[in-house]
Amino acid sequence: MNTARDLIKRLRNSDLDGFIVSSPSSLSYLTQFHNPDAYALLSSRGLAYFTDSRYAESCKDKLKGVLSLRIINGSIFASLAEDCLNLGLKRVGFEERHLPYAEYKKIKECLKGKVSFVPTYSVIEGVREVKRPEEILKIKKALEITASAIDFIKDFIELGVKEIEVAAELERFIRYQGAKGSAFDIIVASGPNSAYPHHSPGSKKLEDNNNLLIDLGVDYLGYKSDLTRVFFLGKINSLYRRIYAIVAKAQDIAIKKIKPGEKVSIIDAASRNYINNKGYGKNFVHSLGHGIGLDIHESPNISPKSQEILKEGMVFTVEPAIYLPGKFGVRIEDMVLVTKHGCEVLSGAINK
Amino acid sequence: MNTARDLIKRLRNSDLDGFIVSSPSSLSYLTQFHNPDAYALLSSRGLAYFTDSRYAESCKDKLKGVLSLRIINGSIFASLAEDCLNLGLKRVGFEERHLPYAEYKKIKECLKGKVSFVPTYSVIEGVREVKRPEEILKIKKALEITASAIDFIKDFIELGVKEIEVAAELERFIRYQGAKGSAFDIIVASGPNSAYPHHSPGSKKLEDNNNLLIDLGVDYLGYKSDLTRVFFLGKINSLYRRIYAIVAKAQDIAIKKIKPGEKVSIIDAASRNYINNKGYGKNFVHSLGHGIGLDIHESPNISPKSQEILKEGMVFTVEPAIYLPGKFGVRIEDMVLVTKHGCEVLSGAINK
Repeated sequence: MNTARDLIKRLRNSDLDGFIVSSPSSLSYLTQFHNPDAYALLSSRGLAYFTDSRYAESCKDKLKGVLSLRIINGSIFASLAEDCLNLGLKRVGFEERHLPYAEYKKIKECLKGKVSFVPTYSVIEGVREVKRPEEILKIKKALEITASAIDFIKDFIELGVKEIEVAAELERFIRYQGAKGSAFDIIVASGPNSAYPHHSPGSKKLEDNNNLLIDLGVDYLGYKSDLTRVFFLGKINSLYRRIYAIVAKAQDIAIKKIKPGEKVSIIDAASRNYINNKGYGKNFVHSLGHGIGLDIHESPNISPKSQEILKEGMVFTVEPAIYLPGKFGVRIEDMVLVTKHGCEVLSGAINK
Repeated sequence: MNTARDLIKRLRNSDLDGFIVSSPSSLSYLTQFHNPDAYALLSSRGLAYFTDSRYAESCKDKLKGVLSLRIINGSIFASLAEDCLNLGLKRVGFEERHLPYAEYKKIKECLKGKVSFVPTYSVIEGVREVKRPEEILKIKKALEITASAIDFIKDFIELGVKEIEVAAELERFIRYQGAKGSAFDIIVASGPNSAYPHHSPGSKKLEDNNNLLIDLGVDYLGYKSDLTRVFFLGKINSLYRRIYAIVAKAQDIAIKKIKPGEKVSIIDAASRNYINNKGYGKNFVHSLGHGIGLDIHESPNISPKSQEILKEGMVFTVEPAIYLPGKFGVRIEDMVLVTKHGCEVLSGAINK
């Protein structure tokens, strides 16, 4: 199992001899099995997996790469700590962004001061942010399903249809195509609703001479897609046309700069400066993008303050936007893969 | 705003003069607005709400009961701490089960040792576990949608249909009825798959002389439902009939014992002992139920080890089960509301 081996190597570099994995996506990464109620302890011995009796049968059949499976009916936290003590571990890391304080406290107590319990935020994240070929295949499949859903919905969209109905049809369609479901709450935002970046679809009906924004992601074998497309019903007005062109160009500028070795902050700035210069800086109210994989938001964070440098194999979204409260919003979102000399727009085949 | 006032009173009883709210459901509880990227600081002055610029417009339009809205582009954690210091607070509580260690650490650092930062697990939970009449109405509406979905799907179920197709149709249907979507991954488990308590629907087709288990919950204005029904296609065999009868009786026994003042552990034991006595104790691999409301799993936890006492207004599931690996599983799940002298089965109108 290469993933666990990579991670064990990384632990040594961080001066750790053990690691408690608590986020469901990191656990999926290591075991190929999604279980929201599990934890694992990684050490040079391999991966010990802790869950409760609800998952005993599924784990027996589906878990991969695990040295020992522990079905715990008492406290999983006490059991994790006990294993650390039994293995004689000295410095055990944990995912500081994915362990609630209460669980941290419980494990720490049970370690009785004999093991250093070390918060980390880039041990597993640092491995996961560079995608392996088999992961890229799953991400591409997730995007294929997303593309066919966008194609499908074009025939469904018409005046009088409600936002929630568009979301309902998308959700049904992607499941028939093999997705587990949407990767996040589908955004279907008509007219002024599209000026809310995270609009929740409601009973508003699609109207003539109005735009429609759809932000859809699917979960395919744990891997996520994330794509935004905008449509227009009726006659496009000149303001909308102008804003759309600015956003499209801002995206294009960013994408052209993506290559290994480039600073993330430079990519964000390229897009943002263009929008600023056009006078809409204050209407682009979020980061340019985010890493995506087993989590919808993961490393690298594509934001102005990011300190990260792009590496080959990273996958992230590029989604500049302009929101005009009371009028409309335009966001164009694609997914890119950093390649040897530039990037591949994974969602490039999906019409804008 | 009664909820914030109730909470401020509770803070005083816990010797706290401030409270940082970090779980999205507790924030919804206090503000009537769902936002996964927000925090709040509650003090005797009222509720200060912290979020980022993506939500600025939505908050202006939709947030309720908030004294001050703070749109933060830097660190929300630093801003929360700064407010605690500016208000001269001495002991500030937080939700220890809903604050990741990294966020705890950041806030604590910024408090510079001048404010005690106190982990709690029952301050907000203790208020939320007893439902207000308007919350019960929303839960009932969520169950109404669930009931109509179960009714609807009966006509769709037939030999050859895949598990994922059943899930897709359910997901579409509930959204047309006004639900935001399913409250958790819908479980559609045919035949031996139903022996996995948390089966993920796959491409298995429904077969003759086989059972089908559906566990469906919906999200209606933030409030969740959770219901499991089992079906049988073809001729029911005698083992299945026997197991079904045991589970149904185990549920009935538990429900009859529910009333204010009763220990939760007694309710769980009533059901569990009956199943034990029938020889299937080891096949009932989970708790009897769980509290439900804005979270799909919330206080009270209906388990053998629970120390809680039932109170009027609590809402929870009662879901005994028997899982026979390789054969099938039977789980029957209903939702109950503790009333003055007993309980009301909120899902009682939905045929078993």
